[in-house]
Amino acid sequence: MADIIIENGYVLTMDSANGDIEKGVVVIEDGRIIEIGESTGRSASRTIDAGGCVVMPGLVNTHGHLAMTLLRGYADDMALHTWLEDHIWPAESRITDDDVYLGSLVGCLEMIKSGTTAFADMYFHMDRTARAVEESGLRAALSYGMIDLGDKEKADSELEEGIRFVGAWNGKAGGRISTMYGPHAPTTCSREFLERIRDRAAADGVGIQIHILETRTDREAIESRYTFDSVRLLDELDILGPGVLAAHCIWLDDEDIRILADRGVNVSHNPVSNMKLASGIAPVAKMIDAGIPVSLGTDGCASNNNLDLFEDMKIAALLQKVKTGDPTVLPARRILEMATVNGAKALGIDGGILREGRVADVIVVDMKQPHLTPVYDIPSQLVYAARGSDVVTTIVDGTVLMENRRIVGLDEEEILGNASGISGALKK
Amino acid sequence: MADIIIENGYVLTMDSANGDIEKGVVVIEDGRIIEIGESTGRSASRTIDAGGCVVMPGLVNTHGHLAMTLLRGYADDMALHTWLEDHIWPAESRITDDDVYLGSLVGCLEMIKSGTTAFADMYFHMDRTARAVEESGLRAALSYGMIDLGDKEKADSELEEGIRFVGAWNGKAGGRISTMYGPHAPTTCSREFLERIRDRAAADGVGIQIHILETRTDREAIESRYTFDSVRLLDELDILGPGVLAAHCIWLDDEDIRILADRGVNVSHNPVSNMKLASGIAPVAKMIDAGIPVSLGTDGCASNNNLDLFEDMKIAALLQKVKTGDPTVLPARRILEMATVNGAKALGIDGGILREGRVADVIVVDMKQPHLTPVYDIPSQLVYAARGSDVVTTIVDGTVLMENRRIVGLDEEEILGNASGISGALKK
Repeated sequence: MADIIIENGYVLTMDSANGDIEKGVVVIEDGRIIEIGESTGRSASRTIDAGGCVVMPGLVNTHGHLAMTLLRGYADDMALHTWLEDHIWPAESRITDDDVYLGSLVGCLEMIKSGTTAFADMYFHMDRTARAVEESGLRAALSYGMIDLGDKEKADSELEEGIRFVGAWNGKAGGRISTMYGPHAPTTCSREFLERIRDRAAADGVGIQIHILETRTDREAIESRYTFDSVRLLDELDILGPGVLAAHCIWLDDEDIRILADRGVNVSHNPVSNMKLASGIAPVAKMIDAGIPVSLGTDGCASNNNLDLFEDMKIAALLQKVKTGDPTVLPARRILEMATVNGAKALGIDGGILREGRVADVIVVDMKQPHLTPVYDIPSQLVYAARGSDVVTTIVDGTVLMENRRIVGLDEEEILGNASGISGALKK
Repeated sequence: MADIIIENGYVLTMDSANGDIEKGVVVIEDGRIIEIGESTGRSASRTIDAGGCVVMPGLVNTHGHLAMTLLRGYADDMALHTWLEDHIWPAESRITDDDVYLGSLVGCLEMIKSGTTAFADMYFHMDRTARAVEESGLRAALSYGMIDLGDKEKADSELEEGIRFVGAWNGKAGGRISTMYGPHAPTTCSREFLERIRDRAAADGVGIQIHILETRTDREAIESRYTFDSVRLLDELDILGPGVLAAHCIWLDDEDIRILADRGVNVSHNPVSNMKLASGIAPVAKMIDAGIPVSLGTDGCASNNNLDLFEDMKIAALLQKVKTGDPTVLPARRILEMATVNGAKALGIDGGILREGRVADVIVVDMKQPHLTPVYDIPSQLVYAARGSDVVTTIVDGTVLMENRRIVGLDEEEILGNASGISGALKK
């Protein structure tokens, strides 16, 4: 007997080889999709009726700092340096490992409730984020964020912690947790440090998460230090490849785009954060035309201020249209590919589409609502009209984490109660 | 005895004279707020517990075409002329008055469920939209959209219908419905037609809704016809004044901004629609600095594709930040003023703030949710983290239209069922 049959829904497979099923079934067993089609002869211990709903792959959030839920709305509408130096960094210096655990649980709840089934993360006290991921049932690619600022001792201790974290957590939680190395950015990590990380990641067989060219100042800083920019520096250091997940990538020139495409680098586009901090508009349409697998990230809650990837899907589409002056760029289905197929690829997840044999990371979206009526085109409806709160059921690795908007494995009320108290502690 | 007491909530009054109340009461009787403060000695026939919630003025959507819910997702990701000429206009030619009624009801449901209590509208078969507004309990400033394209006979018949509509509906539904004249745009209405509308609006004592400079092509068309642009044309015709609600206003130069400010024109900014159609980015920060009361609109569902003004609040803030390169522009409280105070002003509603004597258009937003935890700053949380689905209770004119997300006066299931069937009828 199978574990779960999801029936009666519109199955948006995101699988270009097999197409969608107007009214179909998805059968799940041992964490995998074992059958998908118009009907099944199997029975299962649990049946989910998705009548009037869309059944689709869970969304993948490819850049963020989960525990920053603690700093949601802590400091907004400020110049970048004031925001970081006078508010975010001082607050982060007061964040304990218990806080990171609590903030990570809030983030996990938020993602489950808005249809995100997997995410990438880079922060500190990462053992506690990993613990929250383990308990929540989500899937994640986690990294300890490292900075050396040219200080050899700092480089040693940071790399040591990064290595320890990879050793402790890679492949844990039944394989739901993978790890990566997290050099923060070419501006905050020396060449020597980046080379050591490159070698260690290769030896451990894990990937690298890094911020690239988030601001114009980043570009100017690297150019004045090295006479060429971040992308060319990283390429010269032989770091760039399909195991690299590069966040932001706003201030690219055409040569940078060519290099990223040639090396097979995964790019995480973070439209809301980039707009809110006034960082700029990434050349997403150009990157996609060049063949770069661009995915979507929310970034941390201090610069978004939520983790609702449905919102980032819509804003990503809108932003490229107004930037390029062309309403045809990034159509709805392409945006969905970014949030599912490309996201799964960036995190090395055998999912992103609904197909027999793939991991069962599945969400059910309720379309029986005023703002989703009538329906002409499912992808368009999901990208331009839906929001994360329309997700009613979230399944990761074959386990139901939310059904009919009720969280199953975590105590939502207790977590929110504890997290509400944090705002006093982190304020000066 | 009063009608309603809302208690235990954070009262975000939007009233700069009196400030917010951390835990307060709002007392409603005969459609008005009769008391507001930390507590009350009164009793009421109904008490609403807003513990853990924000109590605030309902949002005002100052530009749209309500019945276009029928065309939600009908045609997306297309060039403007293809979208209009090959899809939207042909579909509109098949829309009946019954369709407009149904589409308007869907729109009313959507607005009630996302915290919008009043809206401006310009479309056709407007009697049926007015009927839907009357039945829904919402407040609206309605106009019949008029176009003459220089044809005198067309001008006569259009104006006749506009006059009839104003006469039939102004002040109806217990004063919840007001009417305006709706010349579509300076590009589609002749000078002579605009002058006749100006005189008739003055005689009837009602305002004017009009699209101004939505696209670069609009600007070029008017400049080639008259040698000056739309704003200067309308000013020369002596149309501009505080009774005018001008939608979009994207392609303004500094002189246009000065004129709009001097004349006291209300501007409706429609960020999502403007981005989706790649129309451009309105100079909102400049307009506000010049003293123009800019409010927010969703535009019709064919170019948004929903009516969730919370989304437009967030995107309006983000878009100006990235456009100007300055993250401090349009801070959260300013955005909320646009969606409440400025919106009410534009529609001539004695509301927009919570204060004794004002109309009781009030919403309750549930903050006890993962994506709204923790709370440092209420305006920031509402603009950057909340969505329309967080609104639990919507009150218009002292009547509860939704409580705990349950619609009170309309049959939601029946309306959505009927509207679901419309998609086949409107497709070619």
